[in-house]
Amino acid sequence: MVMSAESQGLQGMWRALEGIGRDGRTGGYRRDAWSPADLELREWFAQEADRRGLDRYEDRNGNLWAWWGDPDERPGVVTGSHLDSVRDGGAFDGPLGVASAFAAIDRLRDRGFAPARPIGVVCFTDEEGARFGVPCVGSRLLAGLLDPRRARALADDAGDTLTDVLARAGRDPYALGRDHEAMRRIGVFVELHIEQGRGLAPLGAPVGVASAIWPHGRWRFEFRGRTDHAGTTALNDRRDAMLPFAATVLAAREAAREHGVVATFGKVRVEPGNANAIPGRVTAWLDARGADEAAVRRLVAELADGHEVTCESWIPLVAFDVALRDRVAWVAGRALEEAGRAGGGENGRRPGRGAGKAAGNGTAARGDDGRAVPVLPTGAGHDAGILAAAGIPSAMLFVRNPTGVSHSPEEHAEPEDCQAGVVALAAVLEDLCTGGVRRGHRTGE
Amino acid sequence: MVMSAESQGLQGMWRALEGIGRDGRTGGYRRDAWSPADLELREWFAQEADRRGLDRYEDRNGNLWAWWGDPDERPGVVTGSHLDSVRDGGAFDGPLGVASAFAAIDRLRDRGFAPARPIGVVCFTDEEGARFGVPCVGSRLLAGLLDPRRARALADDAGDTLTDVLARAGRDPYALGRDHEAMRRIGVFVELHIEQGRGLAPLGAPVGVASAIWPHGRWRFEFRGRTDHAGTTALNDRRDAMLPFAATVLAAREAAREHGVVATFGKVRVEPGNANAIPGRVTAWLDARGADEAAVRRLVAELADGHEVTCESWIPLVAFDVALRDRVAWVAGRALEEAGRAGGGENGRRPGRGAGKAAGNGTAARGDDGRAVPVLPTGAGHDAGILAAAGIPSAMLFVRNPTGVSHSPEEHAEPEDCQAGVVALAAVLEDLCTGGVRRGHRTGE
Repeated sequence: MVMSAESQGLQGMWRALEGIGRDGRTGGYRRDAWSPADLELREWFAQEADRRGLDRYEDRNGNLWAWWGDPDERPGVVTGSHLDSVRDGGAFDGPLGVASAFAAIDRLRDRGFAPARPIGVVCFTDEEGARFGVPCVGSRLLAGLLDPRRARALADDAGDTLTDVLARAGRDPYALGRDHEAMRRIGVFVELHIEQGRGLAPLGAPVGVASAIWPHGRWRFEFRGRTDHAGTTALNDRRDAMLPFAATVLAAREAAREHGVVATFGKVRVEPGNANAIPGRVTAWLDARGADEAAVRRLVAELADGHEVTCESWIPLVAFDVALRDRVAWVAGRALEEAGRAGGGENGRRPGRGAGKAAGNGTAARGDDGRAVPVLPTGAGHDAGILAAAGIPSAMLFVRNPTGVSHSPEEHAEPEDCQAGVVALAAVLEDLCTGGVRRGHRTGE
Repeated sequence: MVMSAESQGLQGMWRALEGIGRDGRTGGYRRDAWSPADLELREWFAQEADRRGLDRYEDRNGNLWAWWGDPDERPGVVTGSHLDSVRDGGAFDGPLGVASAFAAIDRLRDRGFAPARPIGVVCFTDEEGARFGVPCVGSRLLAGLLDPRRARALADDAGDTLTDVLARAGRDPYALGRDHEAMRRIGVFVELHIEQGRGLAPLGAPVGVASAIWPHGRWRFEFRGRTDHAGTTALNDRRDAMLPFAATVLAAREAAREHGVVATFGKVRVEPGNANAIPGRVTAWLDARGADEAAVRRLVAELADGHEVTCESWIPLVAFDVALRDRVAWVAGRALEEAGRAGGGENGRRPGRGAGKAAGNGTAARGDDGRAVPVLPTGAGHDAGILAAAGIPSAMLFVRNPTGVSHSPEEHAEPEDCQAGVVALAAVLEDLCTGGVRRGHRTGE
């Protein structure tokens, strides 16, 4: 594939981003919200917005906005994602959506497009929740779906609260909360994201569209024991908090299989954490998701039995607006076909009628004429899910992930698939500016 | 009990120490080797030595020494312990032995004692191994039982090596290694320590003597999986490193019961450690000990099956010099009887003949005339065990721990029992200076 000017733009942005917050040992990214790396990424966003002459500002919750046109005259078409990462995450989860947003604007401008509605680029703050344990903090605060008092009290591993961290970053922690003005400006939201999982690769499709986000939640388990000397305390005198934790890890896998959901203990804190001390307390975080909300809840109830469990986050099923979803799938498919990218990238396969069908649990895209991109559900949470839950027509474009690996340094998307994502996104923005789904005019659900 | 001048001295030292490195949230101590807290403790040691006009110096391995008399003329009688702590440890484990050493010198001087042999106070560096994972670093380097190349490469959780840390503290990492000169100065070593476990309380005895240190070791287990997204990766596609870890924790408890030893996973590191990422790697440290070395090894071999396991430390059974042990028990018992403290402190019980018998697996003290203090084994490692393994006649005095809890903020000894420890230690030092066991003149084993 010949590298186009806009592809060079995406690759150029990629090169500027790739060194920020990367850990030399693991090769993964450590872009905690409000860390030095995150502040550098925010600066990068500002420069990209300024370079394009967009009107930029930071809202009261720390989300970054860049507007082409005036969203106070008419609610706009918004795209973007986030720049923070999980610990030792990959390069694509988040930044691909933000860089693609700028690249799509470049593509529209290169083609002489003059939008009838304003177009906005957004970078949501702290999507991953790597630092404070709660995901989508920026979009949830914006939408009024997270109590600002709870947000202010969130603490990181070092014991610093979000209040402390914001104040040190020169932000006002008491400004946090539902932002009617910023919300009113969003007519429709489209988030481009690397696929997490491996639904597109078997279909030979570089780009897909989300049907739904599984219900998912995070629960904190506290297992209590009594700290004591590992060498001098007889087995019968011990209360070792590691034992109930270990039993719960194994039980979670069994229960997940039984209930047809996924369950993961990915983070654990042992106190005091000395090799020669019996753990007095183990705190562990369970992530559980599935297509069936009741099944997820049953699993948690079974595991919680007799333990101290706190739900830190719960997001019910998000079913994206069906009319918008189908329109995005169709517009994206047509644009890729025009660009010679409807087929499967390097292997040259073109999607037949089946490519317009859903992968996994998805439903077929309406208006499927053999050109619409595949529609598929996801187990990953996203800011688009938050906005959808808040009533904003929202959609997601996925860029093929050949291995499906995500939240890992091995996360990867091919450059030509990323470029296909930009082509699709630009076409969708253009379509939504000229027609598409308008605020207050949602069709279907 | 009326507070004596020397008791006030011990309590005064205690007050100076109690604030250093204490965590306000847990109430436990965090005195990692070479941390700011440790440097403050080292400064405290220097001041206490200077206050008493002792000749002090720091050896090439960072151990601190304070001499009353010239150990280059004649090998001395050495006492002391360590000042570092496990994370969130108690106040007594280590510092009690150092403060009691100074207090015993005060007591001897108050009584007009003029030692015929030099008396030394030592503070060994990094006894707990809380920072670099290997215990007794200072004494093992001193005795030539730890390769300085291995020591230099030890890394803490932040990735700093001991080399980095020593250089930052203004020490020469390339000076580490067996210190013939410092070793030659030690004629005999007596370490006073809070009891870890609860052997003395049922005997009504404020002070005891160690018979042996159980063989014990530390093994690092690496469980490997593949980092991936917790929401989008199907159960069958996962390689979750937390699962084999959890299974091994439960198997360790079963195997420990079966083999009659103790086994603990007290420290674990999960990578990447995100609540929404499947663990790609879990590193966990097993501490295993028991009276029977072969049983400990069998347990580790069973658990290691199929996993990547590294032995980080192994200390075989240390049986303290029997003649020295019995002499110390007898001298301590006589001194406590003279001071009216032979009986059981607050409950006023006096030990009958049984108190001279061993508790647990110990053997009866030779020369038991009803006055010797109890002799008991321990599952805890100590610098005295290292020196004994290196051929230096060594002994340990234990001060009663009413609950047996150790390596915890709840670790405690009553002030009058600590004072009884000083009385016993002073008598033992006096005895060893005038007679006792001399270097090159060991009796029995």
